Amino acid sequence: MNRQDDYGAVVAWVEGLEQGCGPLAGFTFAAKDIFDVAGLPTAAGNPDFAERWGLPTQDAWAVAALKRAGARLVAKTHTHELAYGMTGLNPHFGTPQNPRVPGGIPGGSSSGSAVAVAAGLVPVALGSDTAGSVRIPASFCGVYAYRPTHGAIPTQGVVPLAPSYDTVGLLAADPALMERFARVLLSEALPVVGFERAVVMSDALELSTPEVQRAVEQVAQRLRALGIATLEKRLGLLEAARETQRVLQGAEAWGFHQEWLEAQQPRLGEDVRRLLEMASRLTPGEIGRALSEQVRLRAEMGAWLSPSTLVLLPATPSPAPMVEELQDPEQALAFRWRTLGLTCYASLLGAPVVSVPVVQPGAKPVGVQLVGPWGSDMGLLHLARKAFG
Amino acid sequence: MNRQDDYGAVVAWVEGLEQGCGPLAGFTFAAKDIFDVAGLPTAAGNPDFAERWGLPTQDAWAVAALKRAGARLVAKTHTHELAYGMTGLNPHFGTPQNPRVPGGIPGGSSSGSAVAVAAGLVPVALGSDTAGSVRIPASFCGVYAYRPTHGAIPTQGVVPLAPSYDTVGLLAADPALMERFARVLLSEALPVVGFERAVVMSDALELSTPEVQRAVEQVAQRLRALGIATLEKRLGLLEAARETQRVLQGAEAWGFHQEWLEAQQPRLGEDVRRLLEMASRLTPGEIGRALSEQVRLRAEMGAWLSPSTLVLLPATPSPAPMVEELQDPEQALAFRWRTLGLTCYASLLGAPVVSVPVVQPGAKPVGVQLVGPWGSDMGLLHLARKAFG
Repeated sequence: MNRQDDYGAVVAWVEGLEQGCGPLAGFTFAAKDIFDVAGLPTAAGNPDFAERWGLPTQDAWAVAALKRAGARLVAKTHTHELAYGMTGLNPHFGTPQNPRVPGGIPGGSSSGSAVAVAAGLVPVALGSDTAGSVRIPASFCGVYAYRPTHGAIPTQGVVPLAPSYDTVGLLAADPALMERFARVLLSEALPVVGFERAVVMSDALELSTPEVQRAVEQVAQRLRALGIATLEKRLGLLEAARETQRVLQGAEAWGFHQEWLEAQQPRLGEDVRRLLEMASRLTPGEIGRALSEQVRLRAEMGAWLSPSTLVLLPATPSPAPMVEELQDPEQALAFRWRTLGLTCYASLLGAPVVSVPVVQPGAKPVGVQLVGPWGSDMGLLHLARKAFG
Repeated sequence: MNRQDDYGAVVAWVEGLEQGCGPLAGFTFAAKDIFDVAGLPTAAGNPDFAERWGLPTQDAWAVAALKRAGARLVAKTHTHELAYGMTGLNPHFGTPQNPRVPGGIPGGSSSGSAVAVAAGLVPVALGSDTAGSVRIPASFCGVYAYRPTHGAIPTQGVVPLAPSYDTVGLLAADPALMERFARVLLSEALPVVGFERAVVMSDALELSTPEVQRAVEQVAQRLRALGIATLEKRLGLLEAARETQRVLQGAEAWGFHQEWLEAQQPRLGEDVRRLLEMASRLTPGEIGRALSEQVRLRAEMGAWLSPSTLVLLPATPSPAPMVEELQDPEQALAFRWRTLGLTCYASLLGAPVVSVPVVQPGAKPVGVQLVGPWGSDMGLLHLARKAFG
């Protein structure tokens, strides 16, 4: 095993057991440092969190499932603090370096997992995705990502951010391997549905740079070559959706951390501190209206996803920005807001996503999201393998 | 048509059109006064609400759908104020009288709809159900009720209470007719699933009086006679579920009414005023934790509802209490809390329910809920017709 962590992705190496047997035998994986591993602290990117959380006595469900299937856990990887951020910049533990974009941010919150995969340390890594946390670093680091149907993979033993949106996701170098790992993780056997149509969300394209627009077109071409019809449509709900997710995710994150923050006054990075402070000032009326709005949005946004239709939109509005551009918390929060506009569609719906990396000659990588209806996980993974594997 | 409203169920008679044609031709219906009817005010049980809401220029979706199918709207019926209450007592417009239990409360919030059906004014009436508002008055008045899968019947043109739980429901004298009306209202054709097992929720029985327990056993017997196996199980989550619904429904109700209440200071009955005041004092942390708890509860409670399994529990912990017992707002809120313990199971899940009335010799009527998995609406309605029609 290559234990040379040139890009600062790894929190801790894990002593591997002997080779297991099962469908994942022979493969190694890493897990974001919000997944419990028995006997190792779970820091969640914060210097005081491990103490509050307590030393895990058992593995997170997903870690245990992959091990049982024969895969070998070799490392725990860095995360944006408390998994509550999209840049991957971490003032306490250092920021993993993007192997594909020198000086570029890794993206977050599953920063170390994306970097570990992009750097070739592991072929697959566990991440989490609440509002884009596997899709964003995958886009910036040029790897594949999978966010499951909400609830389809147990989150037991994973530090929560906002359970209404939290999912256990994957980052992978190869779509076939990602499919193989996903099959092990899905608690229920899901059918492989086929797709006949892909809707390209035009308002999402308008939020993105020309190179990102070209990447989406490139993916659309590949789908057409497989006989999938593509058409452009305007959703017109992304503004409302990201505001709704901002409020509800904030309330849940604050709800989970409130007691610890108030009682222990732990160290917090400036960006995370601001997000939690904003959440602590939400009023019951604001949250109540966001809940009602979510019902409307889910009905309207979900209507696009008929059983044989997927939705295509960029994972991020641009390739990886430079680290210097996002050091300022103000800039980091503005970046968050822009990016949330593209990731909120699937997050708010709880719909599954496969994000595929597109690398154009001379350009930085960028990810394109394929969003399918609930439970179409295996269909999306299968399609990604056929189209891009 | 019988226009003699001996029990005070009707807000306003509606001038009927000529007989229509379609699957509901020849049937009349009433609609709770939170459903818009073009040209008539929507008072929602509050003396100042109609002005705020504005005079409807079109029928609510459900009213229009029933009319299109040939049914004739003949009356708008009384509701608990703002549909936010379970007694049906209304200090502004008067309380409909329970035709089956002299001096008993009608139950709410769809009080007038249940009374209109029980009194034989109409065979079917539209109600709404957020936390039991068709099931509770149906139980007390001895009629059938149907709460659909959340989202399966459009709520457009209905005054919201808490859209995350709001549904358009039915009250009916006969399960075959209820099934016929439901088929028209369901926006999507749902398959008629069969049931093999019924789980009797034992902790729900313990919250109920002996006569209610006997009613559940009577329904279980009828199901066994149809070849459905019954077994008792303890859920152990009803306390947590009702607290979660209390918080989240409160936040949504407050979110919807806040601006009006603060700007206009409308008249409000004491029980509704207290509920809204409590909701206005919820903190973002409380609401956030309730959101997270809801995810856990939905996963655990939903696990009982496999495709061929339904859950059996009482609709109310007792038959109709007397009006005098619940005049005091303190008593009304305690009654609400007890009753919510039985209705919250399906409401929090968004699962469909058919409530069937059981009348034992010499006893007051009481309803028993048949709760099925999402989308099993037609299966439940079909079963109710077969077993009790």
